[in-house]
Amino acid sequence: MSDTKAFAAHDPTSKLVPFSFNRRDPRPNDVVIDILYCGVCHSDLHQVRDEWGGSIYPMVPGHEIVGRVTAIGGGVKKFKVGDLAGVGVLIDSCRKCNPCKEGLENYCVEGMTGTYNAYERDGKTLAQGGYSTMIVTDENYVLHISDKLDLKAVAPLLCAGITTYSPLRYVGVEPGMKVGVVGLGGLGHLGLKFAVSFGAEVSLITTSSSKEADALRLGAQHVVLSTDKAMMKKYDSYFDVLLNTLSANHAYSTYLRLLGLNGTMINVGLPNAAGEVQPFALLKNRRRMLGSGVGGIKETQEMLDYCAEKNIVADVEVIPMQQINEAYERMLKSDVRYRFVIDLKSLK
Amino acid sequence: MSDTKAFAAHDPTSKLVPFSFNRRDPRPNDVVIDILYCGVCHSDLHQVRDEWGGSIYPMVPGHEIVGRVTAIGGGVKKFKVGDLAGVGVLIDSCRKCNPCKEGLENYCVEGMTGTYNAYERDGKTLAQGGYSTMIVTDENYVLHISDKLDLKAVAPLLCAGITTYSPLRYVGVEPGMKVGVVGLGGLGHLGLKFAVSFGAEVSLITTSSSKEADALRLGAQHVVLSTDKAMMKKYDSYFDVLLNTLSANHAYSTYLRLLGLNGTMINVGLPNAAGEVQPFALLKNRRRMLGSGVGGIKETQEMLDYCAEKNIVADVEVIPMQQINEAYERMLKSDVRYRFVIDLKSLK
Repeated sequence: MSDTKAFAAHDPTSKLVPFSFNRRDPRPNDVVIDILYCGVCHSDLHQVRDEWGGSIYPMVPGHEIVGRVTAIGGGVKKFKVGDLAGVGVLIDSCRKCNPCKEGLENYCVEGMTGTYNAYERDGKTLAQGGYSTMIVTDENYVLHISDKLDLKAVAPLLCAGITTYSPLRYVGVEPGMKVGVVGLGGLGHLGLKFAVSFGAEVSLITTSSSKEADALRLGAQHVVLSTDKAMMKKYDSYFDVLLNTLSANHAYSTYLRLLGLNGTMINVGLPNAAGEVQPFALLKNRRRMLGSGVGGIKETQEMLDYCAEKNIVADVEVIPMQQINEAYERMLKSDVRYRFVIDLKSLK
Repeated sequence: MSDTKAFAAHDPTSKLVPFSFNRRDPRPNDVVIDILYCGVCHSDLHQVRDEWGGSIYPMVPGHEIVGRVTAIGGGVKKFKVGDLAGVGVLIDSCRKCNPCKEGLENYCVEGMTGTYNAYERDGKTLAQGGYSTMIVTDENYVLHISDKLDLKAVAPLLCAGITTYSPLRYVGVEPGMKVGVVGLGGLGHLGLKFAVSFGAEVSLITTSSSKEADALRLGAQHVVLSTDKAMMKKYDSYFDVLLNTLSANHAYSTYLRLLGLNGTMINVGLPNAAGEVQPFALLKNRRRMLGSGVGGIKETQEMLDYCAEKNIVADVEVIPMQQINEAYERMLKSDVRYRFVIDLKSLK
């Protein structure tokens, strides 16, 4: 099939550079998508730099993909040419295990197939992501995208959106609950919007007082500076739920202490190093810590439909593909409000 | 009031020695208990040696107390002279906060009053525990003890029993669930008995193959050696619930990896140092880690009644008070099956 233009990493230390490769011809269940926008996720950077280990090169990152269907395989039922379509963090799974049957493909017992930095289920074809002009994906792992929303601002919902929506739903956030969002970045700003939309009393917990105005604009009622000991003490045992989005290494206990009786801290950030838990900080108030990674296809569609209904999108800064290396450096300094999105016109 | 004979610690490094002090005269709501047996909890040792910080000396440890009522205050309604009675980990709480009103005095917002190594709510009277001949306690914090069971084997239920019963109930252990108990000591052997009695398929996870026969005798169906990498891999993602009773410092991730989808690791041991959690070990399978400390008075009574009905008691080795220092050394080597209990006759 025709050449796909892309940007790829070739090793953990070099910059991303132009790259081209062939996508497969569509199989009966495949959807061919012309990529319009792709969000830039912190996990792209972790994997490009092999910070989690096991990275596979050349790597075309990108798993927050929005585009338009240009062709379909003969057996495709859910999409037609011209439809808007999205691809998120996973493009396949075993389809047989209990989690897959329950729509939790992200917790597939055999392991989901990532959109990039992964081999497809044939064990040899390298999956390549959305820093590219087109993608070919099985329709069962493709999402419908509403035309009501700004497409460039929809892209980050495919990872940052579902990653925050899913656990907030899972722990049952509802009106009146006190929710603290730790960190206001790509994940945090969407988590904050979701928690507000679910009717919770939402606070931002941040190291940066410069985020205060934005947090209030996004619907937070309090901003807690984690560097301010008196303020952290004031909010000791205050929250029902914490959504911890930090990607930098940190001690979990620092934030666990903010949870009240039966409170849950959801960890969705993925620091490179282990975090510490002080036994008493977990025991007090019968606190809980919950890990959560993205969400299944069914729930991702539910989230996208919810966002279309509630007019929820990411706050984005659009860049051309050629600026990805600078974007990574700025992302490391939290110098983006709040998600870079690549406009793939720049590669066509 | 008359002298109470006891054994006390006077600093973090010396041995426990004979000690005497006065218990208060009974107030209207107080129950005076002649102590028959007192269990030896690992937390006694932690506190005697000031391993958690803030220890108050002289310290008479002991919070697994079983005895007989010898006098009551004028307002006491729940006990009469001659009744069997128990005192556990807490002897008071604020009685006004929501957790107290819900029967979760152990999670009192102001902090529960510990049975020893604590000041009573007047802020000045030092609370002293069960390594002593008698205790005076408000009836609202005293438990009824059935005469159906072996009293010396009942004593450990007051701390080790409720500490394991409460979270296993809280996470909803039921027939068919796969429960792994990490560590077979005072807590672990009771946790194992409870999980078996709730109908779960129970495994012991241990570093010591010498515990295998006992685990099977107590009702475990599998014994997983945590030092055996192949065996740990075999049980990767296997369990619904883990009851982690380890009091030695350890990495939490080692055991988290054994949890399947939506599985929960309950931490009831209280190591001196923080434990590490690898972000991916928590994220995979949407795993959870739950802290839990003892239980409220209502649930402690429920547990004692359940034990009387199901004939569940601790496996104990009875010692005279004078052997407490040797018992501590043996406990540190896990050389006890599975709880030392002091026979207070030795002090009278």
